[in-house]
Amino acid sequence: MTAEILAVGTELLLGQIANTNAQYLSVRLAELGINVYFHTVVGDNAARLGETLKRALNRSDIVITTGGLGPTQDDLTKETISKTMNRELVLHEDILENIRNFFAKRHRTMAEINKKQAYLPENSIVIPNPNGTAPGCIIEEGDKTVIMLPGPPKEMQPMFEETVFDYLKRKTGVILVSKMLKIIGIGESELVTRLMDLIESQDNPTIAPYAAQGEVTVRVTARCSSHEEAEALLAPVVDEIRSRLGIMVYSENGQSLEEVVYNLLKENGLVIATAESCTGGLLAGRITNIPGSSEVFERGYVTYANKAKNEDLCVSWETLSKYGAVSRETALEMLNGLRKKTGASAGVAITGIAGPGGGTPEKPVGLVFIAAYVNDKVLCRRFEFMGNRERVRNDACLHALDTVRRLILGVEQQ
Amino acid sequence: MTAEILAVGTELLLGQIANTNAQYLSVRLAELGINVYFHTVVGDNAARLGETLKRALNRSDIVITTGGLGPTQDDLTKETISKTMNRELVLHEDILENIRNFFAKRHRTMAEINKKQAYLPENSIVIPNPNGTAPGCIIEEGDKTVIMLPGPPKEMQPMFEETVFDYLKRKTGVILVSKMLKIIGIGESELVTRLMDLIESQDNPTIAPYAAQGEVTVRVTARCSSHEEAEALLAPVVDEIRSRLGIMVYSENGQSLEEVVYNLLKENGLVIATAESCTGGLLAGRITNIPGSSEVFERGYVTYANKAKNEDLCVSWETLSKYGAVSRETALEMLNGLRKKTGASAGVAITGIAGPGGGTPEKPVGLVFIAAYVNDKVLCRRFEFMGNRERVRNDACLHALDTVRRLILGVEQQ
Repeated sequence: MTAEILAVGTELLLGQIANTNAQYLSVRLAELGINVYFHTVVGDNAARLGETLKRALNRSDIVITTGGLGPTQDDLTKETISKTMNRELVLHEDILENIRNFFAKRHRTMAEINKKQAYLPENSIVIPNPNGTAPGCIIEEGDKTVIMLPGPPKEMQPMFEETVFDYLKRKTGVILVSKMLKIIGIGESELVTRLMDLIESQDNPTIAPYAAQGEVTVRVTARCSSHEEAEALLAPVVDEIRSRLGIMVYSENGQSLEEVVYNLLKENGLVIATAESCTGGLLAGRITNIPGSSEVFERGYVTYANKAKNEDLCVSWETLSKYGAVSRETALEMLNGLRKKTGASAGVAITGIAGPGGGTPEKPVGLVFIAAYVNDKVLCRRFEFMGNRERVRNDACLHALDTVRRLILGVEQQ
Repeated sequence: MTAEILAVGTELLLGQIANTNAQYLSVRLAELGINVYFHTVVGDNAARLGETLKRALNRSDIVITTGGLGPTQDDLTKETISKTMNRELVLHEDILENIRNFFAKRHRTMAEINKKQAYLPENSIVIPNPNGTAPGCIIEEGDKTVIMLPGPPKEMQPMFEETVFDYLKRKTGVILVSKMLKIIGIGESELVTRLMDLIESQDNPTIAPYAAQGEVTVRVTARCSSHEEAEALLAPVVDEIRSRLGIMVYSENGQSLEEVVYNLLKENGLVIATAESCTGGLLAGRITNIPGSSEVFERGYVTYANKAKNEDLCVSWETLSKYGAVSRETALEMLNGLRKKTGASAGVAITGIAGPGGGTPEKPVGLVFIAAYVNDKVLCRRFEFMGNRERVRNDACLHALDTVRRLILGVEQQ
């Protein structure tokens, strides 16, 4: 089965937004085993859209369009496709009612132009839009299918997930089940090397590694006809990957590292405090990104200057001058000061050189010491991170979280 | 003049990456006054690529391809285009030498397959690639032009900027000069309303507003034949926008709010301290993102729990229980405590409800108090931010920076 994706919108051709919808849909179609041979973007122009649609229908089984379902005159996807496929547009009273309610809930009145959105091609399947006013629709014509979705990803994605994915699954007779293994402490190329034989020999499940912002993810996806079958296919592969990577695998369901640490802290009745130098508050910011983090986090210190390390965390001037602010000794004194000051059951201290300036041959940019305690266990680790300032700071936050995770799990070293 | 962008690569059709190249190129082409009517993505398939190229050459003056210039058999853009346009591929000894040097510099030997990259269509203009092994090229054929660029943005963008942009500028005879006005304290729709008459009546310079992550940007772009002419066109429009928006415009050259505040602090010999509750360290993290921030920032406190507000910043239990942690009174006591503790010449305190939980009818999610001082001037502001937790925290950081900026500039209210 082949598909192509046809995005409609002059804003795409002006570069005001990237065509992320095509990427999103392509990933999901690939998982369904549907081949995508073309992406096309056209502007809000009926002639070019009609011509492109005809060509797409000639060469592909399924055409998915995004965009052009809005209320204005520029929005002409539905009108052009209906005309091309010789279908009337008919008013759906229930959709009109939904649109009116959508505005009423937001204490606004529906503008007359929005009525246009309640018209759909005759004999089409409605795709409800819980997050906006434009419903989508599916037209079947012989062995060809046209699926129309709106442009905003926040509307398009839920509609695809809630209606279209199942529709296509029924068409292909396939279900897909994935595990998202998230991994820290190993680069993407090293990971690929360790899993190469599995990646190359596996066809079902497939194993797809990818890296983003210092974290590596491996998606293991089984294609089959039932959930039981999928689980049976996935389990041995996940076990094999876990046995090769050990403690480096921190979640199986795509959870972020801060979520994993938040849950571990909560389950163990721990409260964590932070002391940050080079990360400048980013670690605390990351922990408090999680709703409910006040259960496990009470306070943090950003001790950027030596004076602050001394006054707020009792790091001695002697240590600072003898070993320097970026040293194991300073990290451990920051940690001790933090424990004394807060009485928290867990703590983490970070000091390092984020760059671009400040590096020396002995202490290069990227050198970071991370010290952590959980009750009476203490661990201090030394890292040399690569990359720019942002990357070093991000990696330092991730490994600070990971150090706490290792302490709680009682696995202090790999 | 019309152009279309043709991206080649199966990884795009699998959704492994988004077609950000098309977006990038579209923005630059729009600035040159070149109309883009189509983006197309095809896989690594000679038949589909050849057919798509022919169609593109039929309907557009310029076709820009990205991708498919690598050394492997899958990379067939150059080969397919040369065949379609009846050109021989000829070996360029100097390019081969460059490729060998590229590897030598990295202490590696050139693989035999890379030799393929030194072949280019006869009578084409070479586009040097300082960041990789694949050069690009330009083929002119009558009034049609094909421009081939590699896929990786880190190679493609410099090649476009250093060679192709000027080539196209000579073709169109146009230069473009932009000012990026960055604005805080007004939403995009309100901004558009205030500038509507300018946006609609202006053709040169053009005025393009857009919004991202709580900040609004207006790009004013003049098209003309000299820099002097451009400046003369831009100045009155920028002045008019500034006169309508006043203090809300914080930069003209695209600088971020933290950079603007960092420069203001530095110029005025100020050092700032932070006290954060709902933003949990993100404000300090943002300030310390700037290399050299240690000149203006020594320390910050993340006082997430009431106990921390009391112990670290001397907020009284009476205030906390009488007015609540999210109140003007608590914000001001946090600020006073911060000043006493640090002796810093500037400070900012934030307390609010980031959500999703914790809101009440009197104190809804999104309610944030921001207090700041600069020397002896103090300002406390109340905000009700919209959106999810991330958005509220981000907006709180931005307005905390803006409050400091207003104090330093001596413009406490709009």
